[in-house]
Amino acid sequence: MKLISLLTDFTQQDGYVGVMKGVILSIAPDAPIIDLSHQIPPQDVQQAARMLGRSAPYFPAGTIFVCVVDPGVGTRRRGIIARLGTQSYIGPDNGLVTLLYQSAERSKDQIAIFTLENPGYQVSPVSRTFHGRDIFAPAAAHYFNGAPIESFGQPVSDPVLVEFPEPRRTRNGWQGEVISIDSFGNLACNLTRAHIDKPESTRIHIKHRMIHGLKSTFGQNQPGELTAMLDSFGYLSISVVNGSARDELDAEVGNMVKIFTDGD
Amino acid sequence: MKLISLLTDFTQQDGYVGVMKGVILSIAPDAPIIDLSHQIPPQDVQQAARMLGRSAPYFPAGTIFVCVVDPGVGTRRRGIIARLGTQSYIGPDNGLVTLLYQSAERSKDQIAIFTLENPGYQVSPVSRTFHGRDIFAPAAAHYFNGAPIESFGQPVSDPVLVEFPEPRRTRNGWQGEVISIDSFGNLACNLTRAHIDKPESTRIHIKHRMIHGLKSTFGQNQPGELTAMLDSFGYLSISVVNGSARDELDAEVGNMVKIFTDGD
Amino acid sequence: MKLISLLTDFTQQDGYVGVMKGVILSIAPDAPIIDLSHQIPPQDVQQAARMLGRSAPYFPAGTIFVCVVDPGVGTRRRGIIARLGTQSYIGPDNGLVTLLYQSAERSKDQIAIFTLENPGYQVSPVSRTFHGRDIFAPAAAHYFNGAPIESFGQPVSDPVLVEFPEPRRTRNGWQGEVISIDSFGNLACNLTRAHIDKPESTRIHIKHRMIHGLKSTFGQNQPGELTAMLDSFGYLSISVVNGSARDELDAEVGNMVKIFTDGD
Repeated sequence: MKLISLLTDFTQQDGYVGVMKGVILSIAPDAPIIDLSHQIPPQDVQQAARMLGRSAPYFPAGTIFVCVVDPGVGTRRRGIIARLGTQSYIGPDNGLVTLLYQSAERSKDQIAIFTLENPGYQVSPVSRTFHGRDIFAPAAAHYFNGAPIESFGQPVSDPVLVEFPEPRRTRNGWQGEVISIDSFGNLACNLTRAHIDKPESTRIHIKHRMIHGLKSTFGQNQPGELTAMLDSFGYLSISVVNGSARDELDAEVGNMVKIFTDGD
Repeated sequence: MKLISLLTDFTQQDGYVGVMKGVILSIAPDAPIIDLSHQIPPQDVQQAARMLGRSAPYFPAGTIFVCVVDPGVGTRRRGIIARLGTQSYIGPDNGLVTLLYQSAERSKDQIAIFTLENPGYQVSPVSRTFHGRDIFAPAAAHYFNGAPIESFGQPVSDPVLVEFPEPRRTRNGWQGEVISIDSFGNLACNLTRAHIDKPESTRIHIKHRMIHGLKSTFGQNQPGELTAMLDSFGYLSISVVNGSARDELDAEVGNMVKIFTDGD
Repeated sequence: MKLISLLTDFTQQDGYVGVMKGVILSIAPDAPIIDLSHQIPPQDVQQAARMLGRSAPYFPAGTIFVCVVDPGVGTRRRGIIARLGTQSYIGPDNGLVTLLYQSAERSKDQIAIFTLENPGYQVSPVSRTFHGRDIFAPAAAHYFNGAPIESFGQPVSDPVLVEFPEPRRTRNGWQGEVISIDSFGNLACNLTRAHIDKPESTRIHIKHRMIHGLKSTFGQNQPGELTAMLDSFGYLSISVVNGSARDELDAEVGNMVKIFTDGD
């Protein structure tokens, strides 16, 4: 099926997202539109790229992700449309597409990327500050309607990719960091099962606190207890059962997290 | 008509709700999906059960409510699908369904409840922390597509029900409590028309303030005035016209509310 | 195409918006429903009227805007349905429709306005406090289904219109004010291109700060710099590149903004 999914840092308070949907439905009246999130921290391309990367696999083939987290709007950064296997990305060429692109490369999926320059697919006049409305939304609607990807602009072979902080080996384990914090106050880290030798005896250090052993489910700990486990997207997660690890630890994105394997 | 309505405590910031919709539409591309709310206070089963109970009568026959307020995720609590007359519930067996279930019993509606155990209706592998994505969303989609309720698991005859605080009689009236506070700061109490003898002469006491007489509409009071009336769902509501009773009274859920009938 | 767009000050936390959608789909199962915003500041008719005015042109012909920002609910204020050219408004007669109405007048569009009094188009019994659910949502659904506008009630020739503050001429320019602030902290003013003689040499004064020259895009300034430009809806906007002008200036709606033309 074809559907359009929206990811922005607009919030839903100012009607900007509603206006984008109005533009889409003016061109493609039958397009189903699904909100992924509109509460990316303002201009945080990295958070948005991560959310897109972990969420896209759960969306159907045919999904067109329209992403507008765009600190460079009004500069010379390009707008792009990227077909990456069975799904597509439309938005600024600022690295939002990184994880989708890398995943398509790994899977040897068909990749095609073009700039968004065709004025026939834009709201006229194009503003300098709201490309979500004037360029990305109408591009998605025309693409939904069947416009060929080659008709949007020039081929792109070098999309901008962002670099994500990678964990590094330490003498007795790994050092990573908190990469996102959800509304429950759960901390997701850039560490996965691959960084953990023996789940039961591993120790995790964050902000002067040591957590002993990796649990496999919330049910193994008491409410209020600081817990480490793998979350539903495969990341090491630090949480407080029925509470908030963010509040308990006064934690923020970027905080250092160390894994110690047993025997020190 | 058939539609799927979602009620969670996920907020919409982390993309979790978007991912559930992606899973649903991957299986049931034509399913209309309506958000009831995603801002239930974290893990507050009672608030969610109340919202579901008061909202469901306004949804069409055929609505499938997928509810994920789930402090017990990862423990041995069951997931269930419940057909309660013309509407259905899918979610944890933790009492969220209480008011729908009791209403169906009162109406002598047809009731059928089954566990959610069929792996054919689950995202594989099932995570320990996100059953909304891995169990409840795909169950709703398969049920929308026509999967018979008996095919989901084992019959359940004893769904978990929560107990709500009941008002109690006092020497000269009733004592109840604030059960929810909306975004305007209006306080809803577990007291209804049935607890009020004479609307004009009744007195309502909350947090050292006494309100004289029940109004029938906001229009009968001055902006800024503390007012008691019956709200649109039938509950005794304490509000400030064009203001916030929560702020005016520094009120919270659980605050005691007393009704005095006349003659003391 | 026909679609229903919702604009309220309900937030999405209490399920009120979900209930309105349930009512709509119970009557008009095929109605597409798009949220414009539900985060209008409580009872702020002027903010809602402005958002409606600037957003409606981006929605398709056939859009029915259901607007519920309603400080007068429960008083004698009327509910109305207004066909204004190719789009329609349903909501309280309190001025929300002002900019749509004035725009239709300017364009010499066909205008027809009726009260909402037909009990056949209402949820029964009608509450005193939630006309969004009991009057406006079902009216939109029946109108979507084809009910003629004349069947809703009595003709209205004098809809309530709000007056917006107008900029006034000063000795050497214009004095206006901040009319809205978005989630990024950008300040929109009731001043447009028409009030600016020479963009490069104009000076803009707000809260003891002077901004020199109007930029045409964010890209012309440094991150963190206080900037004046025309926003995507044509208003003078004061912003901080990748930051918040609201925070930088401790600004709020109503703050005075002065434009000085060159030569003082």
